[in-house]
Amino acid sequence: MNEFSITRADCLARDAQDPLAPLRERFDLPPDVIYLDGNSLGARPRAALERAQQVVAREWGRDLITSWNTAGWFDMPKRLGERLGPLIGAKPGEVAVTDTTSLNLFKALAAAVRLQAEGPNAARRVIVTERSNFPTDIYMAEGLSEWLQQGYRVKLVDSVEELPAAIDADCAVVMLTHVNYRTGYQHDMAALTRHAHQHGALIVWDLAHSAGAVPVDLNAAEADFAVGCTYKYLNGGPGSPAFIWVPQRHQEKFSHPLTGWWSHARPFAMSHGFEACDGIGRALCGTQPVVSLALVECGLEVFEETGMDAVRAKSLALTDLFIELVEGTCANHPLGLVTPREHARRGSQVSFTHPHGYAVMAALIARGVIGDYREPEIMRFGFTPLYTRYVDVWDAVAILKDILDREDYDVAAERGAVT
Amino acid sequence: MNEFSITRADCLARDAQDPLAPLRERFDLPPDVIYLDGNSLGARPRAALERAQQVVAREWGRDLITSWNTAGWFDMPKRLGERLGPLIGAKPGEVAVTDTTSLNLFKALAAAVRLQAEGPNAARRVIVTERSNFPTDIYMAEGLSEWLQQGYRVKLVDSVEELPAAIDADCAVVMLTHVNYRTGYQHDMAALTRHAHQHGALIVWDLAHSAGAVPVDLNAAEADFAVGCTYKYLNGGPGSPAFIWVPQRHQEKFSHPLTGWWSHARPFAMSHGFEACDGIGRALCGTQPVVSLALVECGLEVFEETGMDAVRAKSLALTDLFIELVEGTCANHPLGLVTPREHARRGSQVSFTHPHGYAVMAALIARGVIGDYREPEIMRFGFTPLYTRYVDVWDAVAILKDILDREDYDVAAERGAVT
Repeated sequence: MNEFSITRADCLARDAQDPLAPLRERFDLPPDVIYLDGNSLGARPRAALERAQQVVAREWGRDLITSWNTAGWFDMPKRLGERLGPLIGAKPGEVAVTDTTSLNLFKALAAAVRLQAEGPNAARRVIVTERSNFPTDIYMAEGLSEWLQQGYRVKLVDSVEELPAAIDADCAVVMLTHVNYRTGYQHDMAALTRHAHQHGALIVWDLAHSAGAVPVDLNAAEADFAVGCTYKYLNGGPGSPAFIWVPQRHQEKFSHPLTGWWSHARPFAMSHGFEACDGIGRALCGTQPVVSLALVECGLEVFEETGMDAVRAKSLALTDLFIELVEGTCANHPLGLVTPREHARRGSQVSFTHPHGYAVMAALIARGVIGDYREPEIMRFGFTPLYTRYVDVWDAVAILKDILDREDYDVAAERGAVT
Repeated sequence: MNEFSITRADCLARDAQDPLAPLRERFDLPPDVIYLDGNSLGARPRAALERAQQVVAREWGRDLITSWNTAGWFDMPKRLGERLGPLIGAKPGEVAVTDTTSLNLFKALAAAVRLQAEGPNAARRVIVTERSNFPTDIYMAEGLSEWLQQGYRVKLVDSVEELPAAIDADCAVVMLTHVNYRTGYQHDMAALTRHAHQHGALIVWDLAHSAGAVPVDLNAAEADFAVGCTYKYLNGGPGSPAFIWVPQRHQEKFSHPLTGWWSHARPFAMSHGFEACDGIGRALCGTQPVVSLALVECGLEVFEETGMDAVRAKSLALTDLFIELVEGTCANHPLGLVTPREHARRGSQVSFTHPHGYAVMAALIARGVIGDYREPEIMRFGFTPLYTRYVDVWDAVAILKDILDREDYDVAAERGAVT
């Protein structure tokens, strides 16, 4: 009882055999920290520091305005999209890295609503999503619905089981986050997309906790639109610009209200009438934050040395191990696993509830195990196969067990923003 | 005839007397370049390189997720807004640095339209702007109008003289760029704002070519909303996030469709209904590109060592000198001044037309005088008093005169994007 089912030495041995182990060296991780929060902010690729210096000192400082062309600043959203595409099953020319996830979601939702309004289901007015979706997704859908002022509304569904029935004859668009940010539950993208289409709805996927975390094949699923984040599992840097995917079949009719000059057919002609360009460029709007955008490339480069199958295999091994060790060694504590045990339904994180989850997480962080906390009661642990080792899992659980066994946490600790 | 009215030595003497001269050292400018394109991309403050390293290596790489609080990432849009505010006549709590100029304009226009829709002028449906406005501003207004689907439309006015009459009983919102990007014409903000209000319209000002370039007092003018750019005269870095100004009197009713979690009253409560926060935070949307955002501070710091009066005095001296020397030495060439001679109507740039403007500008750039070109025929020269010297003006004109006198430019040069 309450013993480790495998030894620390076993974990070291698994690390020695791990084909992804060499990639850890591509990241700069602080010493004495076990970083299990890559699902909130990915660690820094070593290359990002040199790249930042290059963009700031040489491209901005020395080459100045010429860098828009010579350093490829203007084409960066599409160039980065091409490199990101293979991670989510995109074809060439279907992804742009730009703006924020919230804004890209707004564009995708607007486009989906307009597509429906011009088709046989023009009378539909409901955007279906989950109450447990990341709040900003719901807020953006509410913002769009309210401003369209044509009776659009957001319908919040309370459980996965109720989703299929909610996609009814009133449903114009389904908006789902593929992997839930709190629980780590992973939807069946292909099945839900098929279900939505069978019932005349379009579907928008938020891949914030999926891209770089789990295999995604948007084209195989025949999804309609997708957006996602580059600063979590893709390690693009704090607040780095997000991405948007528009499949070729929808590009010609892709339209949204944020019609800035970067989506114009001839942006430098400075004409006064908007005319959308062809292709994924339609998803762009205004001038992008070049330094932050450039660093996204350093994160994507690391993925090009492996593949999502290898990443997924290690992710499942890490999360399986974490669940097994926590449940085996902390069984006498009131922990509740909220992440699915079923592989197909699990993302790359493990969440446990604990009545003093906030305080326990604060104690973990104080001892160098960095996860995070999400209301209510949820301790989140994210596993990034590119830099997380098996021995990190073992050590993290040993510290968690010690904190719980000794009740070494302050239940009176003030709750602040644990981002 | 065609002689310099003052000598190069005179210019050096003026530089020696210039109270702003020491600030040039705060910028890293490439050698052998006369940079007259700060109205497109401001030069790099020296501090920006160290700041970039700090954010990337320490805040992201070492402190990771904790930096959202400990390094103040989350509060940065408002903190930078406080520092920017004095340059545009804002009161505390009225400015945020966030997103792009296009997106901020969309928010401001949406808010203005909604304010009107809820007041005595609810029937008004026209957004008045100039055909010569920066195209993306017009595109964003068109995008908003078309998506509101309530008869809103954008009315383009062809001359400054026609503007007052266009602000009629159908006009809901006037949207103007304070200093025109091509001509450098500066509107009378106070008079046009007063005129708009007298005729029941609200007014949104784009300060892209004004902030840090000319004195602006939004509160004195009683303007309604304003947006602007940080990567031109504010030297924030390529594509650095833009700003938005919402005066205290409009904040309570400020609303727009881009309701992301950063504008929520309790962003970390993760509640599923949108509830706007108080204050300028309402203008925020999603997670910001931290590295690019952080560099904005380096540009703003330099302004805190001087004031807009001093900046303006030198700006007018530089642009007066440039006009005088070009007209005095190149009078035999077909140059046409399109920037107003009247100080009150002039921004911080000088634009000349030339039948071969594109080719002449390319020749200037090849010889180290970096200005830019805007269709049709316009050569733009931007003057940034923080780092541009009087002797730079003299040298630039000497090179221009040499190129024109010897016809040392290639009229067959292909036209590309001169950003």
